[in-house]
Amino acid sequence: MSEPLFKRLVAEALGSAFLLATIVGSCIMGTELSPGSAALALFVTSTSTGAMLVVLIWLFGPVSGAHLNPAVSLAFAANGQLKWRDVAPYCIAQLAGFLVGVWAAHAMFDLPVLQIAVTARTGSGQWLAEGIATFGLILVILGCVARTPTVVPVAVGLYIGAAYWFTASTAFANPAMTVMRAFSATPAGILPQHVVGFVIAQLIGAAVAIAAARYFWPRTTLSAEARPQRSPA
Amino acid sequence: MSEPLFKRLVAEALGSAFLLATIVGSCIMGTELSPGSAALALFVTSTSTGAMLVVLIWLFGPVSGAHLNPAVSLAFAANGQLKWRDVAPYCIAQLAGFLVGVWAAHAMFDLPVLQIAVTARTGSGQWLAEGIATFGLILVILGCVARTPTVVPVAVGLYIGAAYWFTASTAFANPAMTVMRAFSATPAGILPQHVVGFVIAQLIGAAVAIAAARYFWPRTTLSAEARPQRSPA
Amino acid sequence: MSEPLFKRLVAEALGSAFLLATIVGSCIMGTELSPGSAALALFVTSTSTGAMLVVLIWLFGPVSGAHLNPAVSLAFAANGQLKWRDVAPYCIAQLAGFLVGVWAAHAMFDLPVLQIAVTARTGSGQWLAEGIATFGLILVILGCVARTPTVVPVAVGLYIGAAYWFTASTAFANPAMTVMRAFSATPAGILPQHVVGFVIAQLIGAAVAIAAARYFWPRTTLSAEARPQRSPA
Amino acid sequence: MSEPLFKRLVAEALGSAFLLATIVGSCIMGTELSPGSAALALFVTSTSTGAMLVVLIWLFGPVSGAHLNPAVSLAFAANGQLKWRDVAPYCIAQLAGFLVGVWAAHAMFDLPVLQIAVTARTGSGQWLAEGIATFGLILVILGCVARTPTVVPVAVGLYIGAAYWFTASTAFANPAMTVMRAFSATPAGILPQHVVGFVIAQLIGAAVAIAAARYFWPRTTLSAEARPQRSPA
Repeated sequence: MSEPLFKRLVAEALGSAFLLATIVGSCIMGTELSPGSAALALFVTSTSTGAMLVVLIWLFGPVSGAHLNPAVSLAFAANGQLKWRDVAPYCIAQLAGFLVGVWAAHAMFDLPVLQIAVTARTGSGQWLAEGIATFGLILVILGCVARTPTVVPVAVGLYIGAAYWFTASTAFANPAMTVMRAFSATPAGILPQHVVGFVIAQLIGAAVAIAAARYFWPRTTLSAEARPQRSPA
Repeated sequence: MSEPLFKRLVAEALGSAFLLATIVGSCIMGTELSPGSAALALFVTSTSTGAMLVVLIWLFGPVSGAHLNPAVSLAFAANGQLKWRDVAPYCIAQLAGFLVGVWAAHAMFDLPVLQIAVTARTGSGQWLAEGIATFGLILVILGCVARTPTVVPVAVGLYIGAAYWFTASTAFANPAMTVMRAFSATPAGILPQHVVGFVIAQLIGAAVAIAAARYFWPRTTLSAEARPQRSPA
Repeated sequence: MSEPLFKRLVAEALGSAFLLATIVGSCIMGTELSPGSAALALFVTSTSTGAMLVVLIWLFGPVSGAHLNPAVSLAFAANGQLKWRDVAPYCIAQLAGFLVGVWAAHAMFDLPVLQIAVTARTGSGQWLAEGIATFGLILVILGCVARTPTVVPVAVGLYIGAAYWFTASTAFANPAMTVMRAFSATPAGILPQHVVGFVIAQLIGAAVAIAAARYFWPRTTLSAEARPQRSPA
Repeated sequence: MSEPLFKRLVAEALGSAFLLATIVGSCIMGTELSPGSAALALFVTSTSTGAMLVVLIWLFGPVSGAHLNPAVSLAFAANGQLKWRDVAPYCIAQLAGFLVGVWAAHAMFDLPVLQIAVTARTGSGQWLAEGIATFGLILVILGCVARTPTVVPVAVGLYIGAAYWFTASTAFANPAMTVMRAFSATPAGILPQHVVGFVIAQLIGAAVAIAAARYFWPRTTLSAEARPQRSPA
């Protein structure tokens, strides 16, 4: 990343805003238009989310890396591809962007901007699902970055689109987004008291993925274009 | 663009005709076959539109740029990638093509060719949605043209396919198409008196996107293949 | 095409068999599983057809060109990319393959192999739709072959997937396939007496597309990889 | 494959686990959310499976080849692209992975982990369908590996996504996965006594595909990047 930090943070925030506006907005529209089929409402959300992720990573990848996810920023820092001191600013930018995205979705659909979630998401099955979903997401990103970096945007979009369905939790897989989904009373939300369980499961999944990626793709075999840029100091 | 202006205008008109015939035609077919689920009818329209956009930009991109949208032509002119004096002819070709497309869709489905829209689309939520939808579209195009030009066709198709769902307005994001949708009484239409609000919101969104693109991707760092061709005069 | 004619004909027949087995088979499965929604049944057919087309053109394109359609073979012959004397054998291989495909689909679903279609498909709207569908298909193929040949397989799949929905006829766009669909009493069929109208409309659409392609992409500007191979004699 | 055998086996097992967790998990979620439409439930399963296959082959292809299927391992061994002595370990890793995947899906959805299938899948139509599905899968893999290797991941995903619908059996096309689906009482399962018929049909389809691939793409014309690596001994 040769761009200045501030521009990278603006990119992370704007991309995060579009991502969560897509999730919450398509959830509202899908639920309104499909009162009789929760499956169809979720399908329009999962395909819209996957499509938007591909676009956002193509768009902002060359600016900030388009992490849009603290778990991804942590994984890149652990791999030497992001400076550790940039992790906290990235997370703050992502949090800010996700909040703007939730509010923008509510405003577009003429709903109250300020909401608190009402959807319960807890229990061992849900936590296992979040752990597996995040493990897979981080493994896909680190593995493709190491071997086939040009497919990363499409791989992430396809993975998340599928993970909505095979995990019991619809694959939040993103700690910052999980926090901000507590501010939406739409079906995309999560009760505030259930956020912590999700975040812990996500971080465990990410940590296991970082270890697994080191086993599968040790640093010495990184492709040239994916080699981390170290700061001179 | 090394093609003569007239050939480029024919390409813009023909591409615009196919684009709006796809939107209106798939809306008619989806609504007829899915009387009980507005969500499914909209989903076949959104996926058909996205797919056709990808094809049309691959097909006509090398001829005319495949703008198919006055907001896109304006953005390229502001960026020095289209001559200002070509903007008006491009818009006229797009308008003509969209009208032919609406009429072709009606004719294929044995409906009266001449119709006036009956669908109300107005209010601050709708206008915000059109502004955001157009902002995102122009940002995606300018950003990908600057950094990853080969993905532009697929990025536009995926973006619009998702934007149908996360914006409350189904993302018209196109002033000329908005005008011509007033000539269709299908659910894809828009009441004539509501056209102006949409167009103003779209132009504001496009203007903000042009400014944002200059911030993210200043001219001096354009990739070689995306560098604007200046006229010698 | 450096492959011997017989191998190319086997490829055309096998590819055609898979294509029509996909259309008829997914139509049967979709209709069985979705008795209440014709839209959903058609959507699984349109997406399956589009996906299989992409795969078949990737697979058999390097062998025979993967025309799978007499209109495509005619267009390539008119463009000097297929010898005129190979057109009739190609069409016969396509016809044979489509018949095997219809019968294989019936056999897989434990239906009588021999059937005669019962679906009426006639009238000016339907004929206009077939003309437009075939015009677009041939234009997409010739234009992408001329300028962006690597995207042809995906462009054809996306185009046909969308054309199912925006044309009133579900875009047969293929004279040999139209003939063989008369042998299926599933919703994918067409009454034998309605075949001729479809074929005439398709051939007119193809002829207009060949002329339009010469206007947009005259021979002298063909990309190197797309230049026709002339026989030395 | 320059990776040590053990790492390749871990990749096969992990990839297989994700693949079957996706199939069983999305089947559970789809059925729960869509009690009234078997078509919609199958559609979310078919699209999730196709998307995950693309991702897994991109991810683990550079490690183990990402066969995830004994029929694929056999085909590569027959083609000299996998050592014969590696076939059995690959199959065992795939079996182990699929079992973990089934159990993980059950656990995520709070279902009993240990289950026995209850879905009957037998008869000549089903066997023909499995034979055709596996024939097509192996032909697509061998043909694309020979001529257009970079598209293999996407081709496999699109093919399987379509094959769910045009085959009467939903295209298991995988002997090891068929065995392990007997351990799921979800609609994705298969009665234990019906497994053998499926496996025999799959192996016949694979054998025919290997022969057909030798006809279409004889070894001497393999593209350089696809040429088999022979062991020195």
